[in-house]
Amino acid sequence: MGDLFAGQSTPAIGFQVQVRPEQLQGPNRVPVLRWSRARVRAGDFPGPPDSTSEWRIRVIQNMYPALSRQLDFTDGESDGGSTAMPGFGFHDVVIESPAHRVHLEDNSPAEIADVLLAYSQRIEQIREFDSIKYVQVFKNHGASAGASMSHPHSQIMALPVIPSTVSARLNSMKEYFVQTGNCCVCQVKRDDLLIDESSHFMSVAPFASTFPFEIWVVPRDHSSHFHVLDLEKALDLAGLLKLILIKMSLQLKDPPYNLMLHTAPLQVDSSDLPFTHWFIQIVPQLTQTGGFELGTGCYINPVFPEDAAKVLREVRVPNQL
Amino acid sequence: MGDLFAGQSTPAIGFQVQVRPEQLQGPNRVPVLRWSRARVRAGDFPGPPDSTSEWRIRVIQNMYPALSRQLDFTDGESDGGSTAMPGFGFHDVVIESPAHRVHLEDNSPAEIADVLLAYSQRIEQIREFDSIKYVQVFKNHGASAGASMSHPHSQIMALPVIPSTVSARLNSMKEYFVQTGNCCVCQVKRDDLLIDESSHFMSVAPFASTFPFEIWVVPRDHSSHFHVLDLEKALDLAGLLKLILIKMSLQLKDPPYNLMLHTAPLQVDSSDLPFTHWFIQIVPQLTQTGGFELGTGCYINPVFPEDAAKVLREVRVPNQL
Repeated sequence: MGDLFAGQSTPAIGFQVQVRPEQLQGPNRVPVLRWSRARVRAGDFPGPPDSTSEWRIRVIQNMYPALSRQLDFTDGESDGGSTAMPGFGFHDVVIESPAHRVHLEDNSPAEIADVLLAYSQRIEQIREFDSIKYVQVFKNHGASAGASMSHPHSQIMALPVIPSTVSARLNSMKEYFVQTGNCCVCQVKRDDLLIDESSHFMSVAPFASTFPFEIWVVPRDHSSHFHVLDLEKALDLAGLLKLILIKMSLQLKDPPYNLMLHTAPLQVDSSDLPFTHWFIQIVPQLTQTGGFELGTGCYINPVFPEDAAKVLREVRVPNQL
Repeated sequence: MGDLFAGQSTPAIGFQVQVRPEQLQGPNRVPVLRWSRARVRAGDFPGPPDSTSEWRIRVIQNMYPALSRQLDFTDGESDGGSTAMPGFGFHDVVIESPAHRVHLEDNSPAEIADVLLAYSQRIEQIREFDSIKYVQVFKNHGASAGASMSHPHSQIMALPVIPSTVSARLNSMKEYFVQTGNCCVCQVKRDDLLIDESSHFMSVAPFASTFPFEIWVVPRDHSSHFHVLDLEKALDLAGLLKLILIKMSLQLKDPPYNLMLHTAPLQVDSSDLPFTHWFIQIVPQLTQTGGFELGTGCYINPVFPEDAAKVLREVRVPNQL
């Protein structure tokens, strides 16, 4: 691509960057991923499932996909510490309901379970393709949390590499496992950080919460990959997720928030991942971040998680909800 | 501190978290750092230099310090993969001018050089203390970039550990050095990414820009630590910094921005750091981030850095500036 030069800046930051072509003026521009030392293999990628005319949930390609499945797929050139490669992958939108003015938690547990099962079914489809290494499911609620439309939706991005934050998490979990023989998420058991629990899941404020009122929804039993979720557990998770989203909305006055599904990489068998445990992270956007956070990766959190857990544990949810 | 439990959540995220006490209701709360595997040693910490009644620049303790130098200093307890320790360190504010309604770039190069030299002098003071491992200098401009007051100021935070983003950057730079024998920042030389240059510095758009119109100001000669800056280089840097801040303000209509000074860890001799090279990163806040960025550490950047460099290179700065 002729876009590379020796020893430019990527290794000094190590972030992975995606360039979206639609907003560019130059001709013949395609999305480009620029990062360090990534290698991918070719694949053949279909679109998301067809939708019917009567639908409750739809999975469609994002109108402004950050990644493209139409690109020819070649190994990225590399030079020095950095690599550029075609911006190849999936970028889907999950429309959670035909109704425009509802929030996810306004739906019944069965309807929320259907959204969760749509995630898992789409991941099952995507993982057929060897080139996709990681799938990030996420939901942005509210303009300041990055949502560009108000109709209830979430997004699925399938990436040809394991992104930096994910590999850092996995390495940290593996290190703990090697030292102790335990999965660190399985060890979550402090009563003062527990918010609520159901048959198969619990909601907690993590001990080292990065953000005020950060919430994790964690399977009680060890499970590395989200996409093995069955109907019974999906219903159970949906009920607990609905409860915590209602509590967060009541207590924090419908804050903008981000919801991230943290699962294990694809193309790796669960039996080789005894140290990873999937979970959902919910981050209400209550604080500004600035140069300190950008520079260091440290976040200043003014709320102790045990205080956040107590507040959320004690929120009274009216019966009619 | 009794705040720990086995295998809680820190290793699953690996972020480092600081809790600020002033906004907490509970009694006897002190700042706490919660993170993984950090060890520090005790020290004796003075305040910033006294200010005189007639001043041009002042360095004072932040009124709401995220870290405290008054705390007793003990090794953090640890349990499983996580550690909590007293939130010990420095959190200073650099008041860049006595005038309330100026921006940093409104000052003369000599005045801006004095601000840069105030950073380096304060780092020189702080590095006398073995316990401080890293100093993050940063500037938030504009409320949405995290600035909580409009008087021109920057901040200095001195930390008892090397934060996660910094260690990731250093590891990446070291890996490149081991592979090639070169410092990756010294290799920055692509003409189409250059914005401006002076005798000792250049401003560039980094090849893998994380954010649109991200700018780096880089010393041309290899130098690991910012604080060795001498007066001549400070004046030269001040001129180039003034130019790029004026250009950014003209072109992007005085955007909110974050400026971060990325230097090498303290307590390590420069001769042991042939792979690190200090630089200033400037990030105008032009895009929203959401769940994808939080979850993956990947950022979607709609502007190719060679386009940003061309635009900034060609901004015409009126003579009277």
